[in-house]
Amino acid sequence: MADSQAGFDIPPLKADLSRLKADVEAVNALGIQPGLPGINRVSFSDADMAGRRWLMTRMADAGLAVWMDCVGNVFGRWEVGDGPAVMVGSHLDTVVMGGPLDGTLGVCAGLEAVRSMQDAGLTPRRPVVVVATADEEGRFGGMLGSQAICGEVGPDWIAQATDSDGTRLADALTGQGLDPTGDTAWRPESIAAFLELHIEQGPVLDRAGEAIGLVDAVSGVFNWSVTLTGEANHSGTTPMDHRRDAFRGMADFGHAIDRILAEAGGPQSRLTVGKAALSPNFPHSVAGTASFSIIGRDADDAVMEALAEACRTRLSEAAERHGLELDIVRHSWLPPTRLDTDLHARLCRHADALGAPYRTMPSGAGHDAQTFARHVPAGLIFVPSVGGISHAPNEHSDWDSIHPGATLLARAVADLAV
Amino acid sequence: MADSQAGFDIPPLKADLSRLKADVEAVNALGIQPGLPGINRVSFSDADMAGRRWLMTRMADAGLAVWMDCVGNVFGRWEVGDGPAVMVGSHLDTVVMGGPLDGTLGVCAGLEAVRSMQDAGLTPRRPVVVVATADEEGRFGGMLGSQAICGEVGPDWIAQATDSDGTRLADALTGQGLDPTGDTAWRPESIAAFLELHIEQGPVLDRAGEAIGLVDAVSGVFNWSVTLTGEANHSGTTPMDHRRDAFRGMADFGHAIDRILAEAGGPQSRLTVGKAALSPNFPHSVAGTASFSIIGRDADDAVMEALAEACRTRLSEAAERHGLELDIVRHSWLPPTRLDTDLHARLCRHADALGAPYRTMPSGAGHDAQTFARHVPAGLIFVPSVGGISHAPNEHSDWDSIHPGATLLARAVADLAV
Repeated sequence: MADSQAGFDIPPLKADLSRLKADVEAVNALGIQPGLPGINRVSFSDADMAGRRWLMTRMADAGLAVWMDCVGNVFGRWEVGDGPAVMVGSHLDTVVMGGPLDGTLGVCAGLEAVRSMQDAGLTPRRPVVVVATADEEGRFGGMLGSQAICGEVGPDWIAQATDSDGTRLADALTGQGLDPTGDTAWRPESIAAFLELHIEQGPVLDRAGEAIGLVDAVSGVFNWSVTLTGEANHSGTTPMDHRRDAFRGMADFGHAIDRILAEAGGPQSRLTVGKAALSPNFPHSVAGTASFSIIGRDADDAVMEALAEACRTRLSEAAERHGLELDIVRHSWLPPTRLDTDLHARLCRHADALGAPYRTMPSGAGHDAQTFARHVPAGLIFVPSVGGISHAPNEHSDWDSIHPGATLLARAVADLAV
Repeated sequence: MADSQAGFDIPPLKADLSRLKADVEAVNALGIQPGLPGINRVSFSDADMAGRRWLMTRMADAGLAVWMDCVGNVFGRWEVGDGPAVMVGSHLDTVVMGGPLDGTLGVCAGLEAVRSMQDAGLTPRRPVVVVATADEEGRFGGMLGSQAICGEVGPDWIAQATDSDGTRLADALTGQGLDPTGDTAWRPESIAAFLELHIEQGPVLDRAGEAIGLVDAVSGVFNWSVTLTGEANHSGTTPMDHRRDAFRGMADFGHAIDRILAEAGGPQSRLTVGKAALSPNFPHSVAGTASFSIIGRDADDAVMEALAEACRTRLSEAAERHGLELDIVRHSWLPPTRLDTDLHARLCRHADALGAPYRTMPSGAGHDAQTFARHVPAGLIFVPSVGGISHAPNEHSDWDSIHPGATLLARAVADLAV
């Protein structure tokens, strides 16, 4: 890693947008399924594996040493220099009916970073490894590829993992010729840093007209199921003051979301009730139960704790007001992940040098970079998503808005490796 | 109808509680189905028809002239006196897994009124007709029996009516040997008055420790389906101020129910959101749409109008606040029905004479009496429902709490007929 001020002793690299675009389009041609909109390269499907094999040929064209590990992670290693490698990439798998850029753009931009260094005649001091991780979208419940690289999961975990249809991960791997008992972990000291470029999947950059987001933390998330239980009664014969109406308890909590955020949240807090059900769910019956989800997120541990406590308080108040019993099932609590401060500052200096409008922001969604961040310095660069649309066929980013981020990635890789 | 002060020139009749109870139990023995809790005499089922045939034998035992009309209404006419008849009764059909008293008690109490007059040696000036109406519970969408008696529906309506499974009413009738093209309407001038005793199906009398409710009006009801449409987004990547969250619009409306009632409602107003659904209904997605029912009721036309207007206003505000589109489908608007004022006053005087604690109250649920009230003087007497439980196997009233109401019914029939 250059000790001088980041990046200013390397040539002003520029990503080749037409080459990058051609790569993205070529790999997405392998994700088109008859009768199914969007891009479909679900983890360990034939299309997913075809995309990975295509990538391996493209990496080989760039002179990289190429291999696939036992869980389907694809690596292309530029065998120059020595010591720990600079790793750059993202994932190639998609959700069902996904978009063309989620993951794919970051993989192709990683390869483009290497090619732009080669074009500029740069010779890295240390190896650069381009990676396409496996199953980032969590078909089998985690971020398999990056977790396997970081040694967080191995054969024991793989042996018990199944998808929502009950398919065993081990069977999915052997079905594609992979060995579910093989070793995938890298020693942390073999990775100098991990860099990822990804679409934002939210509307912030697009609305602000900014080309680059430099992520300083990935939000933590808590996931609760709440049940309020009152009494199902006839909507005509039960006076209002004799009711224990579970719907109204849920509504009072929903109405309190602004107050919870004002009192306990920060500017990056998110609080969402996305799933709800009443019982008996009949227009002429007062609701006996209301069951609903609460998803809370923040990039700061203390704020997350305060949000959760404020939710609990407002739920208790709503239950009390309507004579309801309150039950909270706390499914999960994933703490925020802070990305490497020095690496973030270095990315900021590159963005300043580039002259592109950018902002520091948290990531509300999970990414491979957060897995790596638990083990090695990791950085995450966002490019704009038009309208914030994500995990949908009409997910889209203008190529012009991608260019500054892709160039920043190339310069940052060069900065770290040369 | 006696012109002197109501009832005080007739002997102090008393319903025979053990005889009434035996009748109720006998007919309910015909509504027990293996493996199905509660009482099950769904309209035009074999059990429903068996209950009606049992009633006809019991009516004949009391010396009444008995017949069943073309839609299954059963009549027992005490052929004494002349002129318009005093009609008394309720329905024998039940909902699926219903309770033992809903409708059945009123039919048996009507027959008991005749028998208690006979026991007291009273000879009416005009005929008394005990009735068990058909399909009050609305399997075919209305209150078929009372509407057919009152001439509101006839063969044309019957020919097009189907239940929620698509079974044609005409087929249900012919399947039980009835003629769907026959005449069922009575001339209004042939009915002097209609009296009905029914369980309250609400908690008011039970909680107040009162034995009798004298209904002055049946609440009107409006039935709306509301859809709020925003934008489904990722719960992690979409900042709070970029959201168009349909759940939060629904919650704001639910929270405003107290305010709507305070500003536009009266003491008898009811406002219920009993059915609700979000889309995509996934914990990690901001709700793109929220669809929910609103049922509003009041016994006063003007209050109903004000309630509906206040709902519309609060819905608009909630939609505006969260950037949502608002769509209201107004399914139905049934205006309140006022029962006969003179008959209500007469029932009050009988209750005073009886010395039983009673109250004047509206009915939040629909009853045959409201159909009759559109054509002839009609009165409705409530007895307490323990806990207000209704349309359920554990619907229950203590027999002691039924006795004052049953006696009041007998005295009122005698008052009107003798």
